[in-house]
Amino acid sequence: MDKKEYIKRQISRTNRKDYENYVTTRIINFLNDLDIKFITQQYIKRKEGYALADLYFPQINYIVEIDEMHHLDNAEADKIRDCDIEDAIGITPERIDVATNDIEGIHKRIDEIVSEIKGLVQKQKDNGKWTPWRIEDEISPDFWIQQGKISIEDKVSFYKIVDACKCMGLNYDGYQRAGANHPYEANTLIWFPKLYENEEWDNSYDSIKGIICTKNKKSDAERIEHVQKCIEDPVKRRIVFARVEDNLGDTKYRFRGVFEMDLNATNNDKGVVWNRVADWVNTYEYNNKPVETVI
Amino acid sequence: MDKKEYIKRQISRTNRKDYENYVTTRIINFLNDLDIKFITQQYIKRKEGYALADLYFPQINYIVEIDEMHHLDNAEADKIRDCDIEDAIGITPERIDVATNDIEGIHKRIDEIVSEIKGLVQKQKDNGKWTPWRIEDEISPDFWIQQGKISIEDKVSFYKIVDACKCMGLNYDGYQRAGANHPYEANTLIWFPKLYENEEWDNSYDSIKGIICTKNKKSDAERIEHVQKCIEDPVKRRIVFARVEDNLGDTKYRFRGVFEMDLNATNNDKGVVWNRVADWVNTYEYNNKPVETVI
Repeated sequence: MDKKEYIKRQISRTNRKDYENYVTTRIINFLNDLDIKFITQQYIKRKEGYALADLYFPQINYIVEIDEMHHLDNAEADKIRDCDIEDAIGITPERIDVATNDIEGIHKRIDEIVSEIKGLVQKQKDNGKWTPWRIEDEISPDFWIQQGKISIEDKVSFYKIVDACKCMGLNYDGYQRAGANHPYEANTLIWFPKLYENEEWDNSYDSIKGIICTKNKKSDAERIEHVQKCIEDPVKRRIVFARVEDNLGDTKYRFRGVFEMDLNATNNDKGVVWNRVADWVNTYEYNNKPVETVI
Repeated sequence: MDKKEYIKRQISRTNRKDYENYVTTRIINFLNDLDIKFITQQYIKRKEGYALADLYFPQINYIVEIDEMHHLDNAEADKIRDCDIEDAIGITPERIDVATNDIEGIHKRIDEIVSEIKGLVQKQKDNGKWTPWRIEDEISPDFWIQQGKISIEDKVSFYKIVDACKCMGLNYDGYQRAGANHPYEANTLIWFPKLYENEEWDNSYDSIKGIICTKNKKSDAERIEHVQKCIEDPVKRRIVFARVEDNLGDTKYRFRGVFEMDLNATNNDKGVVWNRVADWVNTYEYNNKPVETVI
């Protein structure tokens, strides 16, 4: 997917609210900067729960809301458990009141927002922290290998498990399961879990506290077997690329940090508990000849 | 309807083609001039037939096409016979190739088009011919009374028959039919015909030649009766506000000029033929107290 296709797909979804399309395209057009990434209708985690944001700029953590942000009730939040959710704790969305403003008022408010976004981008540039949006790089393992590391704040997600593995120095060619042993880091699994309840697992993920719980839900016996296997397993460290569905409906594997098993919190009832110990991970060159590995 | 509502409704229809919405909003946003009217998906009459234009600027007679203009076949053209159709004879649409251009190429082409539109508007301003878009004025009889006249090139259409009548100095309050006698101009009817085939009439209108044909199609007797009545009627002059459906689906009465009956061309077989004799008409102050008139 190139920027042309990306922009079209993001813009085509801006029809939930009156004026949403007009306001969104006007902001994007006036920014007029293909280095700035935007996402429409992005699920975000806020202090008080989940919400759906009209327009989100991940590089500067900036949210634009056309009137009131839609806060999800429990039933809705449950439905989006496999979705790619951004943390937006502590961010106050910028609001555009399209109901009471006339067209000139809407335009004035958009000008303010555009100017503020440009200011935030400039500030990052001044601090040497700006990374221009490169849609090809986002999903390219080679780019991240060149960077030398992947951080949570890079908001990296890959379309394919093989691409995440490549970043870790593993070029495999074969059937894929939920994880692969790291070729360079001892006792470490590259892990691709579903961090939400699914057919087999009652998993959960707290992005703020950095805690993952995994619990087999098929039967008591299987749950206990899984817990005991994990306790005995010397592989106690996991690099997590969680399986998510992005806002365009594509499946992706999003880097969530490095986790270590919490032996104190883990037990047969609760399942296996993992604590985030790092929000970044090294990347490694991979061998050009794929290894035939069953992972 | 104000500009805010108008813009929303026009923009909401730009979803027929890929990138149509993005290109349209980008042009409108970069023009950034609420004095410039735009219409999306406007039916236009071209030399070679009818076509549907993606984006039309009536003040400067400028058409933007996203890739190839959609030329209507006969069946389609038949379906739109009651629609508000713009003449665009001799205008070459400006095209944007969104298929082969990348996003930068699309942006460059949009910049060219925006710059050209701004140039055409400036040229009209320099020639003293520019009329800023005033959405309230367009449908307000008082504005046109103040102007002193209505021309075809003003592209005037009213939502209500009473408003067209007010422009002619007639403030009536009552049941409306297809026409009203002009209160100030002798032997003249203010006429609101359907200029297309309908249940009762086989009417037609040639906007280029300026010819209207009206023929009752219910029976031979009624057709002949109508022709004879018109021939005998001293009212041989008609100010035409044709009933049309605009591109937002609203019924309007569009000024089409002043017509006189063509006694040579009129006969019992062909029906009544009217020739355009003027493309403008005077407007008159109306009495604030409505007249109870059956027209």
